[in-house]
Amino acid sequence: MPGCFCGSDWSVLIPMDKADYIIASYLLETDGDLEEAADALATEQSTGTWTDVPGEGEARERHGARVVKVTKQGERDRPSLPTRFAPQGEAPTARTYSWGVAEIAFPHINFGPRLPNLLSAVAGNLFEMGAFTAVKLLDLELPDEFLSRFPGPRFGIEGTRELLGVFDRPLAGAIVKPCVGLGPRELADIVYQAARGGLDFIKDDELLADPAYNPLEDRVDAVMEALGRAEQETGEKTMYAFNVTDRSDRILELHDIVVDGGGTCVMLNYVTAGFGALRMLAEHTRVPIHAHRDFFPAFTRSPSLGLSTKVFTKLSRIAGADQLHIGALAGKLYETDDEVLENVAACMADLDGLKRSMPVSSGGQHAGKVPLTWRKMGHPDYLHLSGGGVFGHPDGPEAGARSIRQAIAATSESRRLEDAAQDQVELRRAIEYFGEVLY
Amino acid sequence: MPGCFCGSDWSVLIPMDKADYIIASYLLETDGDLEEAADALATEQSTGTWTDVPGEGEARERHGARVVKVTKQGERDRPSLPTRFAPQGEAPTARTYSWGVAEIAFPHINFGPRLPNLLSAVAGNLFEMGAFTAVKLLDLELPDEFLSRFPGPRFGIEGTRELLGVFDRPLAGAIVKPCVGLGPRELADIVYQAARGGLDFIKDDELLADPAYNPLEDRVDAVMEALGRAEQETGEKTMYAFNVTDRSDRILELHDIVVDGGGTCVMLNYVTAGFGALRMLAEHTRVPIHAHRDFFPAFTRSPSLGLSTKVFTKLSRIAGADQLHIGALAGKLYETDDEVLENVAACMADLDGLKRSMPVSSGGQHAGKVPLTWRKMGHPDYLHLSGGGVFGHPDGPEAGARSIRQAIAATSESRRLEDAAQDQVELRRAIEYFGEVLY
Repeated sequence: MPGCFCGSDWSVLIPMDKADYIIASYLLETDGDLEEAADALATEQSTGTWTDVPGEGEARERHGARVVKVTKQGERDRPSLPTRFAPQGEAPTARTYSWGVAEIAFPHINFGPRLPNLLSAVAGNLFEMGAFTAVKLLDLELPDEFLSRFPGPRFGIEGTRELLGVFDRPLAGAIVKPCVGLGPRELADIVYQAARGGLDFIKDDELLADPAYNPLEDRVDAVMEALGRAEQETGEKTMYAFNVTDRSDRILELHDIVVDGGGTCVMLNYVTAGFGALRMLAEHTRVPIHAHRDFFPAFTRSPSLGLSTKVFTKLSRIAGADQLHIGALAGKLYETDDEVLENVAACMADLDGLKRSMPVSSGGQHAGKVPLTWRKMGHPDYLHLSGGGVFGHPDGPEAGARSIRQAIAATSESRRLEDAAQDQVELRRAIEYFGEVLY
Repeated sequence: MPGCFCGSDWSVLIPMDKADYIIASYLLETDGDLEEAADALATEQSTGTWTDVPGEGEARERHGARVVKVTKQGERDRPSLPTRFAPQGEAPTARTYSWGVAEIAFPHINFGPRLPNLLSAVAGNLFEMGAFTAVKLLDLELPDEFLSRFPGPRFGIEGTRELLGVFDRPLAGAIVKPCVGLGPRELADIVYQAARGGLDFIKDDELLADPAYNPLEDRVDAVMEALGRAEQETGEKTMYAFNVTDRSDRILELHDIVVDGGGTCVMLNYVTAGFGALRMLAEHTRVPIHAHRDFFPAFTRSPSLGLSTKVFTKLSRIAGADQLHIGALAGKLYETDDEVLENVAACMADLDGLKRSMPVSSGGQHAGKVPLTWRKMGHPDYLHLSGGGVFGHPDGPEAGARSIRQAIAATSESRRLEDAAQDQVELRRAIEYFGEVLY
């Protein structure tokens, strides 16, 4: 099988420089031979051809993707995904479907330091190849030579902390709820209350950007005025992430509206806007980027298709996300705690000196989830982001914000929240309302 | 259940103006009540809140998404997708999972005419809600009031045909194979051969954009010179789609390089680049946009998750795709012929006067597939796009191109290809090499 060195340790046996290659690991399933399937993928996604062209041998040498290793892991009696060759709902045939992990090395000279083009290579046409009945990109190993061409997050954990002057505990944040339908003034009113309660961070809902009923420019004015008042009273800063999601050529304009109006953070729904838009914004931004990942589970949640959330998180950090959603421990979302912790690791791991993205824990969060989240994280470098857990507190947003800060303070002193709640009414009311404390 | 008018005909029973709403149809599956699940989706994706805020009633009235109809279709004894609440691989519990179709109306005042923001609303956070064990957006019904704010394709079928002067038959096209690794001159050489053979259209592979080994500017020069020579010999034009995929702020620069160099078409990998990037390019472009959909099956191929290809195709047309990939009939990709024909219908259907996108049939195409494709399409308004079917022809690209034109000519005269092949050697050799003719 040309180009396939299956089962080998490629660094020993293949005459190629690791610095020139990105190694992609895939889950593959096929009714044919697994090694041939891996080879077909490598060929299709690089120098695929049926013909002889002068000089092709040399081009294939430099530009061809190579199968590094194929590890068969099992067989199934029916396909994980439907294809025209194995329609869903049909009775299982006598066929078996082999599945396993294939590692494939892609020369990064083929696409250069461009995320959309990297994705087209390692996660493009391969998903529609009828010959595969499962195909999922599990991980990417990126050499420093490739990573060094991405600036990555401009602020990251350290930059976000410095802007706030908070260094030794998780940040307390909230998503304005409700957001859709409120005008700038109404929204600024509840933001003021939450900031008075001690939040470090507040953000637009992902559903709000620059609509006619709440134009971004007016919202920046109203919110920054409200936060200024709150800061005078509390002596603490609150960062606000304004959503600048729009079609690509509008994003930088919206960023400028935010920063010119005194705004301290911008938010991008970077999956619906595109990785390329996040990269663009990261090169331009003067404030941290809060990266919201709505839509992503459409291509990560199937066990048989798309990308792992770990790869997705890694790419998001490389693209320049300063603050990055990673799901929630014991949350209301679909990911298991193990998957969430893999996402956190992708934010924190060493990546050729790229700044770390601040993990944002979000999805069903409230005061009672602080102890468990902090314990499982194992460090305080994350943003605890509530929605209803602050704005739905029975005594209002200010009390909701206080309940989160009280939970963080108690946990940092290794006190049980139920004990701290004895003389902290906001925390007590939060526990009563949102349910049991998780440790 | 507030906000839910399940099982009703909303246009009669709900006091709202259809022009103000987008109707989204979802496949939903849940271990709870299906109508409650639909209501939770509508609330989460619009005015979701746990709290009372002054004026909220009015905001909810104008901005809340509403469940229009829920049709339960069946039950399953295990979840279609894993969640933290129903991990994959566990023995099925006593639970049942209900599934069916929910129609939900979203006020478009919430996001305005912005595709990334539309997606965040109708296809955002909902995919990660642990309460759903299947969630797929099946269709979007878009009122003219919303559509009228999108220019759509600038050229479409008619514009593409006019630039080529070809009106009464499918267009014959090819993807340069191999593409990765060739320099500008080598690539221009085989493009020249294929153009001499009579192709209407040739394009970059989606894996080639503006890499160091084949810079776009040099490629434009070399290819346009080669096409000029071919046109002088054949008297026919060949359009070439240059791939301008890059991070968002580079795309328009690359477009300008193409057009300033005399290029006649630009190509965008618009899924990895983002819908917002396609929309941006469509507002700016001076030549047709060839929209390449690599990556999309990552969120369309699962029967339980993501978007239907029909919705995806509709959105691509609205974003401004002049030529749009729709899979291939009897092709090598995963989609069934019925799904492919739904995509074609989405290119052609009446959409408030938006131009039609030219369907691009691609994936395992060669001369022998012309009769079946044309018959199933039912009209000649499409681009028959081969890769190996032209560049892998045993007698080279010029012969490959001729074989496609010969197949189109024979089919337009209702002749069987085997008969036409008696005195047309390129067609005969194609049939011998690529296998049987499909009718």
